Amino acid sequence: MNDIAVPTTKHHFSHHHIFGIEQLSALDIQHILNTAKSFREISTRPIKKVPALRGKTVVNLFFEPSTRTRTSFEIAAKRMSADTFNINISTSSTTKGETLIDTVRNIQAMAPDILVVRHSCAGVPQLLARHIQASVVNAGDGAHEHPSQALLDMLTVQEHKGEIAGLKVAILGDISHSRVALSNFLGFTKMGAEVRVAGPNTFLPPGLEQFGVITCSGVKEAVQDADVVIALRIQMEREKDSLIPSLREYSRFYGVNETLLQGAKPDAIVMHPGPVNRGVELASTVADGDRSVILDQVSNGVAIRMALLYLVQGGDKGIKEQGEKR
Amino acid sequence: MNDIAVPTTKHHFSHHHIFGIEQLSALDIQHILNTAKSFREISTRPIKKVPALRGKTVVNLFFEPSTRTRTSFEIAAKRMSADTFNINISTSSTTKGETLIDTVRNIQAMAPDILVVRHSCAGVPQLLARHIQASVVNAGDGAHEHPSQALLDMLTVQEHKGEIAGLKVAILGDISHSRVALSNFLGFTKMGAEVRVAGPNTFLPPGLEQFGVITCSGVKEAVQDADVVIALRIQMEREKDSLIPSLREYSRFYGVNETLLQGAKPDAIVMHPGPVNRGVELASTVADGDRSVILDQVSNGVAIRMALLYLVQGGDKGIKEQGEKR
Amino acid sequence: MNDIAVPTTKHHFSHHHIFGIEQLSALDIQHILNTAKSFREISTRPIKKVPALRGKTVVNLFFEPSTRTRTSFEIAAKRMSADTFNINISTSSTTKGETLIDTVRNIQAMAPDILVVRHSCAGVPQLLARHIQASVVNAGDGAHEHPSQALLDMLTVQEHKGEIAGLKVAILGDISHSRVALSNFLGFTKMGAEVRVAGPNTFLPPGLEQFGVITCSGVKEAVQDADVVIALRIQMEREKDSLIPSLREYSRFYGVNETLLQGAKPDAIVMHPGPVNRGVELASTVADGDRSVILDQVSNGVAIRMALLYLVQGGDKGIKEQGEKR
Repeated sequence: MNDIAVPTTKHHFSHHHIFGIEQLSALDIQHILNTAKSFREISTRPIKKVPALRGKTVVNLFFEPSTRTRTSFEIAAKRMSADTFNINISTSSTTKGETLIDTVRNIQAMAPDILVVRHSCAGVPQLLARHIQASVVNAGDGAHEHPSQALLDMLTVQEHKGEIAGLKVAILGDISHSRVALSNFLGFTKMGAEVRVAGPNTFLPPGLEQFGVITCSGVKEAVQDADVVIALRIQMEREKDSLIPSLREYSRFYGVNETLLQGAKPDAIVMHPGPVNRGVELASTVADGDRSVILDQVSNGVAIRMALLYLVQGGDKGIKEQGEKR
Repeated sequence: MNDIAVPTTKHHFSHHHIFGIEQLSALDIQHILNTAKSFREISTRPIKKVPALRGKTVVNLFFEPSTRTRTSFEIAAKRMSADTFNINISTSSTTKGETLIDTVRNIQAMAPDILVVRHSCAGVPQLLARHIQASVVNAGDGAHEHPSQALLDMLTVQEHKGEIAGLKVAILGDISHSRVALSNFLGFTKMGAEVRVAGPNTFLPPGLEQFGVITCSGVKEAVQDADVVIALRIQMEREKDSLIPSLREYSRFYGVNETLLQGAKPDAIVMHPGPVNRGVELASTVADGDRSVILDQVSNGVAIRMALLYLVQGGDKGIKEQGEKR
Repeated sequence: MNDIAVPTTKHHFSHHHIFGIEQLSALDIQHILNTAKSFREISTRPIKKVPALRGKTVVNLFFEPSTRTRTSFEIAAKRMSADTFNINISTSSTTKGETLIDTVRNIQAMAPDILVVRHSCAGVPQLLARHIQASVVNAGDGAHEHPSQALLDMLTVQEHKGEIAGLKVAILGDISHSRVALSNFLGFTKMGAEVRVAGPNTFLPPGLEQFGVITCSGVKEAVQDADVVIALRIQMEREKDSLIPSLREYSRFYGVNETLLQGAKPDAIVMHPGPVNRGVELASTVADGDRSVILDQVSNGVAIRMALLYLVQGGDKGIKEQGEKR
């Protein structure tokens, strides 16, 4: 197996768990992005495998289904040579009346190294981490944080724009129900970008200014001179919930299309966390157009998850210690 | 890890995708069968693993459930040391309104090497292949093709009969709804066999002569002097659909039993793609009798799938190039 | 990869299948426990992987869902470097009308080395074993046996008490519907412990004396001077079935709590096969208290399953033979 180019950043990354962007400094974030950059190349090799996490046990503990995020973490883990185990909660023993904490203590007793957790309630990763020794990586908790998504978004922006500091980033749509939005607010502002949001009033929570985010009166204002436009996904059930009048009207007033993008910088890029509702929050012409970097986001997702799994296990330090123990 | 005996055929296999038997020449088919023969031995070793596809990513993308075919591909991939990922579509994001092409582009962005695809609609593998770089292997598309099944059938026939050319092959039952039937028509005729079909009129599509297939008026005629008898599976719901009067009557007039087989060659073999409806399309005495090679088909299925995964990745050529890059 | 400390017991372990504790002698059981003890350490290493079962194919064939047991076997198999395949029966072809024996013959044709089987009917593992060459390990068959659970219970007792012979073991609750109970009766009595049971009359089958088990008139009597107290899980649906008057009453009269444990030895340990219904068969204070060794049971479960997979494959003997063949 080939070696990996270990990032040369001197920064000492000391997080055993990744709950969210909130806990990370700008230096931490840059260290993760640098590590991910050095791992990106592994997925282009004929033999996509490095021994960095050989003999490590990664458990994907998903209380909410998410084929996309789970597969990305699973591919990341296996490319680092870890053994992976998927625990889907609908078929698990919490349905037998066991508490969440009992479930995770039982998993801990089987000596996993990393738990990747997705749950519909905010704060579950932190709660679980208090009861186990394994590293916890948050793969989305309720409408709270989705740190690996924000990190892959930042990696994608750095890839296309060089530096994040000074960029104008517009985030449009369902801010209220989006863990992607919150993690991106925290990440992009920490990295020195100007973040603007816009969307229907029913989708804009009060108090966004506490995150250093500018709330615009309309999407046109938010997109003005933007370097990066992020369209958030509309949950189709919001129409039924009467939070938006209709999908057609949503698309007309808040959807990202060519006309709206005329106000952005000429080289502005468009991102979306996926899966895209084509013709609703994003026009097909934009999704498939030159500005779209949506598939780069997906590729960077694998690299970011490789970096997170590697770093929570101690990174170079962890690997070196193992080498000595061998 | 032990080496594999690479087949000595000089034939240059140039297919990056396997959509169906239709695209393959007789030489291609024989090359696949020879490769599979050389791989069959791996599954009999104490250590059933060769490094041929180490570090390769094989994604089983199943839009229709099929434990049997999926497991066979998964075992084949792991015995070649590939990493495998199962994406079951009922829990995936196509249910979130994402298009098929978006789904596959997203998977491509995670840099898989091979996509094994099962879908209820004909043509999906070809459609997906136009949007990705990974190799696509068709694991069954609608009532169209199921190439790995036909190849394992041909391997089983060669194993028991030596050569396919000149053999008489009877295929009985639900021809209309069977992807196995079409792939076998194409395969056995390309390899020089005489293929005869029979079944209820509601199960016999018009125009079978275009495939060089002989439509017989009854199963007795089809089986006369046959070397190989393939009973197709009856979907139980056909009775409800009124395509057959009753399962009992189907069994009586079209089922393969000892009496019917008296007309076949004394050493005729009986095959079935599985799972068998005992007492419907196949009598239990036949399924468990000396003529039955049904379990050989299953074993050969793993070998054929190892060969397909190996060959679409460039086979010896691909492996050698990797060696140089290492 | 590191070596494993092979147990020094001279005992010749000759079982190709593990159907239940019934088939095992006290020497067999001790050999399994010794082997598991030597494997326990593997799960504490930074690289949790030994090559003992490299290239072996382990199929988890679960006709009843059990995330907990399946994950434990899967982790055990992967830590021994085996390739694992999960076949969940609800999506498999037995739903297509295939017989159980056809299903297992088809799996056998793909050349697995070990089949781990869970089924709701007693005797299925033995039935399947008559039709295949692979080793069968019973992961629970109906209300019959659950040998790996009893073995992990015995390992946990040895870990905490040194020796099993002479100990007093109380097993409380739903004896009738528990495969754990039967396997534990057989195991603990073979190892020389005194086993007492107690529970509602509707949960106590007649004829327990044939197993050398003492049936007590109440839980208080059963627990008197006990070294080990095992609380069995109550299936919540028993209340609906009118087998117990109410969960509250069950808890009051049969639940394991601090008051009840006052009658046990001062250093008595409390066990439960999990998942625990807190406040029903086990008080939370006990489950989380000093006497509870429930999580040790889970950790020992991985070690026991590593030992079983290793030993049915021939153990040291098998490994040595492979080494010579390499």
